[in-house]
Amino acid sequence: MRTQNKKKILNDPIYGFINIPDQIIFDIFEHKYFQRLRRIKQLGMSHLVYPSAVHSRFSHALGATFLMGEALNTIRYKGTEITKEEREAALLAILLHDVGHGPFSHALEYSLVKDVSHEKISLLIMEKLNIKFDGKLSLAISIFKDEYHKRFLHQLVSSQLDVDRMDYLRRDSFFTGVTEGAIGTQRIIKMIDVVDDNIVIEHKGIYSIESFLHSRRIMYWQVYLHKTVLVAEQLLMSILRRAKEVSKNGEVLFATPPLAYFLNEDVDDKLFEKDENALKNYTLLDDYDILAAIKTWAYNAEDKVLRDLSERLINRRFFKIEYSDKEFSFARLKKLKKLTQEKLSISEEDLSYYVFTDHTSNYMYSNEGGSIDILFKDGKVKDIANVSEQLSVAKLKKPIRKYFICYPKEIL
Amino acid sequence: MRTQNKKKILNDPIYGFINIPDQIIFDIFEHKYFQRLRRIKQLGMSHLVYPSAVHSRFSHALGATFLMGEALNTIRYKGTEITKEEREAALLAILLHDVGHGPFSHALEYSLVKDVSHEKISLLIMEKLNIKFDGKLSLAISIFKDEYHKRFLHQLVSSQLDVDRMDYLRRDSFFTGVTEGAIGTQRIIKMIDVVDDNIVIEHKGIYSIESFLHSRRIMYWQVYLHKTVLVAEQLLMSILRRAKEVSKNGEVLFATPPLAYFLNEDVDDKLFEKDENALKNYTLLDDYDILAAIKTWAYNAEDKVLRDLSERLINRRFFKIEYSDKEFSFARLKKLKKLTQEKLSISEEDLSYYVFTDHTSNYMYSNEGGSIDILFKDGKVKDIANVSEQLSVAKLKKPIRKYFICYPKEIL
Amino acid sequence: MRTQNKKKILNDPIYGFINIPDQIIFDIFEHKYFQRLRRIKQLGMSHLVYPSAVHSRFSHALGATFLMGEALNTIRYKGTEITKEEREAALLAILLHDVGHGPFSHALEYSLVKDVSHEKISLLIMEKLNIKFDGKLSLAISIFKDEYHKRFLHQLVSSQLDVDRMDYLRRDSFFTGVTEGAIGTQRIIKMIDVVDDNIVIEHKGIYSIESFLHSRRIMYWQVYLHKTVLVAEQLLMSILRRAKEVSKNGEVLFATPPLAYFLNEDVDDKLFEKDENALKNYTLLDDYDILAAIKTWAYNAEDKVLRDLSERLINRRFFKIEYSDKEFSFARLKKLKKLTQEKLSISEEDLSYYVFTDHTSNYMYSNEGGSIDILFKDGKVKDIANVSEQLSVAKLKKPIRKYFICYPKEIL
Amino acid sequence: MRTQNKKKILNDPIYGFINIPDQIIFDIFEHKYFQRLRRIKQLGMSHLVYPSAVHSRFSHALGATFLMGEALNTIRYKGTEITKEEREAALLAILLHDVGHGPFSHALEYSLVKDVSHEKISLLIMEKLNIKFDGKLSLAISIFKDEYHKRFLHQLVSSQLDVDRMDYLRRDSFFTGVTEGAIGTQRIIKMIDVVDDNIVIEHKGIYSIESFLHSRRIMYWQVYLHKTVLVAEQLLMSILRRAKEVSKNGEVLFATPPLAYFLNEDVDDKLFEKDENALKNYTLLDDYDILAAIKTWAYNAEDKVLRDLSERLINRRFFKIEYSDKEFSFARLKKLKKLTQEKLSISEEDLSYYVFTDHTSNYMYSNEGGSIDILFKDGKVKDIANVSEQLSVAKLKKPIRKYFICYPKEIL
Repeated sequence: MRTQNKKKILNDPIYGFINIPDQIIFDIFEHKYFQRLRRIKQLGMSHLVYPSAVHSRFSHALGATFLMGEALNTIRYKGTEITKEEREAALLAILLHDVGHGPFSHALEYSLVKDVSHEKISLLIMEKLNIKFDGKLSLAISIFKDEYHKRFLHQLVSSQLDVDRMDYLRRDSFFTGVTEGAIGTQRIIKMIDVVDDNIVIEHKGIYSIESFLHSRRIMYWQVYLHKTVLVAEQLLMSILRRAKEVSKNGEVLFATPPLAYFLNEDVDDKLFEKDENALKNYTLLDDYDILAAIKTWAYNAEDKVLRDLSERLINRRFFKIEYSDKEFSFARLKKLKKLTQEKLSISEEDLSYYVFTDHTSNYMYSNEGGSIDILFKDGKVKDIANVSEQLSVAKLKKPIRKYFICYPKEIL
Repeated sequence: MRTQNKKKILNDPIYGFINIPDQIIFDIFEHKYFQRLRRIKQLGMSHLVYPSAVHSRFSHALGATFLMGEALNTIRYKGTEITKEEREAALLAILLHDVGHGPFSHALEYSLVKDVSHEKISLLIMEKLNIKFDGKLSLAISIFKDEYHKRFLHQLVSSQLDVDRMDYLRRDSFFTGVTEGAIGTQRIIKMIDVVDDNIVIEHKGIYSIESFLHSRRIMYWQVYLHKTVLVAEQLLMSILRRAKEVSKNGEVLFATPPLAYFLNEDVDDKLFEKDENALKNYTLLDDYDILAAIKTWAYNAEDKVLRDLSERLINRRFFKIEYSDKEFSFARLKKLKKLTQEKLSISEEDLSYYVFTDHTSNYMYSNEGGSIDILFKDGKVKDIANVSEQLSVAKLKKPIRKYFICYPKEIL
Repeated sequence: MRTQNKKKILNDPIYGFINIPDQIIFDIFEHKYFQRLRRIKQLGMSHLVYPSAVHSRFSHALGATFLMGEALNTIRYKGTEITKEEREAALLAILLHDVGHGPFSHALEYSLVKDVSHEKISLLIMEKLNIKFDGKLSLAISIFKDEYHKRFLHQLVSSQLDVDRMDYLRRDSFFTGVTEGAIGTQRIIKMIDVVDDNIVIEHKGIYSIESFLHSRRIMYWQVYLHKTVLVAEQLLMSILRRAKEVSKNGEVLFATPPLAYFLNEDVDDKLFEKDENALKNYTLLDDYDILAAIKTWAYNAEDKVLRDLSERLINRRFFKIEYSDKEFSFARLKKLKKLTQEKLSISEEDLSYYVFTDHTSNYMYSNEGGSIDILFKDGKVKDIANVSEQLSVAKLKKPIRKYFICYPKEIL
Repeated sequence: MRTQNKKKILNDPIYGFINIPDQIIFDIFEHKYFQRLRRIKQLGMSHLVYPSAVHSRFSHALGATFLMGEALNTIRYKGTEITKEEREAALLAILLHDVGHGPFSHALEYSLVKDVSHEKISLLIMEKLNIKFDGKLSLAISIFKDEYHKRFLHQLVSSQLDVDRMDYLRRDSFFTGVTEGAIGTQRIIKMIDVVDDNIVIEHKGIYSIESFLHSRRIMYWQVYLHKTVLVAEQLLMSILRRAKEVSKNGEVLFATPPLAYFLNEDVDDKLFEKDENALKNYTLLDDYDILAAIKTWAYNAEDKVLRDLSERLINRRFFKIEYSDKEFSFARLKKLKKLTQEKLSISEEDLSYYVFTDHTSNYMYSNEGGSIDILFKDGKVKDIANVSEQLSVAKLKKPIRKYFICYPKEIL
């Protein structure tokens, strides 16, 4: 019974029970780098629109790992060999695929740090863990970096139809209550097979794939890029940029030590390589550092702009946001800035925190990420974009770009 | 408390509880014409593929009535007047919309009867009930026939986005377990409004409508027109046609009295009007008459062909079916017939029961049924086909036609 | 790929996908004896109260087989050996455990046949199949009869906590919509282990077992023994008894051949052994024979009583039923009979079809069926009845008996 | 359309859509006192065992408000008058019933503050809001305090079967994935009625009430008082008590301003009445203040004990906890303390943070909270404890008390 001590079963409201199958996976699961994900919300600000969507990146990582196990079972059952080591490595790769995410990841990447992607940091952390665990993560890292010859293992971790997407679409749909976004993970996984080291989907699963693409589109516009979510993220970015500026100008802001580090240092890609303090502080940072600070700034920051922006976030006095298919004119922007300057007595140089325009876009399906391949009964493999009876190829591949402009509601 | 006696609450695994709101609706609900729907499976032969899909037209009618109540509540809440009488009539119209369905409706309409649509019979039955209930169904009939000036009430009963479709997609998806076919009925209904006496959907519900169209497509090809379902229906049609022919030639087949009536009479459109026996027998006919007979024919029919066909249905020895986007050639058909004749010793004249070709088709969206209209914030109303960012208009409106050919597996 | 042809995946709205794992199981599944269960409703008359509860014994058998597979996986994982042959046999035993059920089983066993239990017939059918399939069911039969030395395999098929009960409680709760009856099958199965060849439940699963017992109680009184369900079953028994009597007196009733056999023969236990026609006809009998006949008798039986009783069933004009904790007095019965005789002009000898009293009872937990054993961390095993902090031992074991009396509503 | 601006619909994964029905409710909903509940987890530390159980008190308050609306509809429908004002007040009372909860409420009430119940603070906050909103909450406060003559309104807010419990059992079961804890809220609410100003449940709902009590028991022992949850809460209490002691001794700990206030002040019942800073700081405090501080103390507190305890919480190095039905002996405690002192070099005076014993208890059903009354068909009303056929009265009312002892795992 000794060996059972380390075995763990976790409850998941979506899949029921999730097993932690072996020792090294359990050890990684218990490590503080992975446990940090408990304190990072999967959907950042989306809970402001969908109150129950406060689930963590931790639960998503576990869910994706569960689906990986299911997918590997299916593939093995259909006759493709997967060794015990490969199985363990693939599970580790997906367990850790998001370990490099920071709090409110999207906003953070454009404010507190520069040119630092979470994938890169995931890799840095995996390598650190690999040293600590005597090279037991080497194969997982190789799969994660797409350097392993059985490429389908990488595709399960990262591609247009990976278990990452399968879990997050299902999970985010579940917790937001946007039932239209739900996907049939079980059916998709039963239809997975491997041909020439590539993941393919049996032809009779084609409707499930169409549903998957359709759900993805819905979740993007209804949840991830929902107006209120976007405007809250933009406000958060304004706050963090301002806090950084204010800090550089010498004001000592209330902050936990790791947040203080990022407020005071110019952290980019390269710094992570040359200064280990960057990664050390990054792995200490989570939603709690960010929100505890902003809540405090809302009443005790000396800088009027930072105080005002923070107070807006906490009390949900968001900017007005407008969406458009076309770029907003310079004239419009200028007019809104002028109005803001007058009504709110904001100095000209601070206006960029209050009035700004940008765009957001998303693909439903992109060939850059590789295709989703359908396996026909005669053994032929074809890209879904070419065989769907329902989806428009042109529309599928065309990025949908939406422009937006933000400004304080009070100026209306 | 006397008045509560007639109030009824029914359990539904999908919506929870369904109330029967008033006396006349309760009386119609209790009437044998409506209760007959308990004995007619909503999906005919589909349970041969999806074992749990044995739900009845009765439960669908109740579900659609529940959704009608919800839709009327939403419309009232948004400011469109609906009188108590109109509400009751709309509920009655949807409760009875399918009351004219026969057992295995689709197969029946092409074999036992000729040119008799279930809508027409629904109307005949409603009119008969109207006489019995002293004209209390007059307004319901007017709505059902689209003669009432508030046309949106008819649209809720019958249009491209009626509560009939909403319930059956949701219900059929639930009982088959084809989760991809599930639709967000609650969200769609919350988005319903009325403009110029027409049902419209608020713009923010556009994704739910796209999902609805998408689900419909999936359910058609994955369930309603599934190969095995189709081939079973074709076999059923062969059986009923043969039974009719055999009866005309004088063999007295085992049959319940109402089934005997349809085997011996040429029942068409006009007969329903001139001979009340047609309707009388029709309202006695359900799945039990059909299957009890076929089960018996499988071993005691004198006619060899009828016995063989019946036995195939009961023991699931279905024909082979092939699908194609193109018509099957006359040569192919001829060759298969020849093979069948040789191997199975079927006489030439009986071959048409064993080898045949036909086609099936379905629209995802058709302008004939009226458009699904989206209400924009500026008050403009536009057809979904013109504003969807995702669905291809051309593909939406193009009927998907699939040709099929059937023949005994044994000849291979 | 040739071997895959026989592999089958079935959709289930409860468990998702159910695999048919190997050749012999597939062959049994396809056999007409098993397919007959498609035409027998799991809950007989309960759909008159719960309209969606029309699911078949076929889907229950599949569900129980799925749970058996899961339970065997858990037991193996925890270290108890189960050979490939034992696994297959256990799956076959549960697949066929209910194959001997007739239509409306409970009512039938007290009217059409005498002293014939469905378990006995299940065994007869298994033995017949065993001959046909060259002894491949021998081990399954041995497990079914509890003659195999690994007794836990039999316990999984039949005991107080078998996969039969687990599936039917879950399934019946699902389709009736009585959510309180739902049980956590997944958790119970994860907690299963084997000690000394007996099934035990790990101590941390004790709440799930309490829930299981609690749900069982709910389902009994809310569904299986619901007043309307019971009264409908009683009426059905009256009809079948009357039909049998009438047939003996020489009236030739409309009936399918197998039903005619049971109307005309005195079928009991012994007949099944000496006359193979008994079993042959039994395996042809299902819900369709019974209801097609009763529907017909409702208007064309010459016998007035049979016609009246049949018409009451079809049009839901059920008797009034009263429940009581005490036996109904002879005086009460007599008085009701007298009233009925006067108001409905029923002859004295026929009164027993219209006015009668009986009782029904159920145990929540009975030691006859063996105990449900809890495995403590220290390795000790104890009966749940002795360790539950919540359930009353006395109440658990005390049968709840309810007396009822039925009579026509019209006499009130 | 102007009036619609304020109307809000929220998505809930459990109930679907939740409407905010009118202006004052919307204004309270938007107020920062209520929005603070977004940042307080409903289940405190339970997510350490059930990873998805991170839902907030905010979503619970909305859910309970939804159920209140449903319950009031049922009661009105059954003939008890509820005025528009009473309806609004009851909705406000339940919306705000938990507004006085602090972060990790249970732990907090025994460490940071003294003798301050969240009910009392809820009332203080309501009264403050009442001033701000010109007395519009007066009736809600009267209901909350049980001073209003229609006492059933208070019972819906707070009693043994209130909508608070109904929502939290359902919600906590949903997010933990402990399916056995799910209750049939819809059925219970349909069965609610009012007799003599008291909430009663119609007799046919008795099984649902038994299920409710049963689920409550399950959730207590499986979730709320789960070993790991309890030991984490105990550790949190140790940390906060230590932090308070350390602060008093002069160490300036990292803390947000509101947390600093509670570390430095002796806040009790009376202080809330005489110093408005107490309430002001309390309404600024949430999970983020607590965890941001503890995360920081884990590496930068000077006090060794605080640093160690904090580090244990963050990295899940919990104490060992043992449960027992009997009190732990003084000798055992002494021995464990001695071992701890030796192995971990903890000073004698600090041992109480590391080794301690206490007990926890819960009632399944208590007469103090009033009874749950069942309404029989003959109009009689009886306490469930006296009429349940299944539950043991004695067991129901007996508090289950469990003793526990905690100590560092390392000493083993």
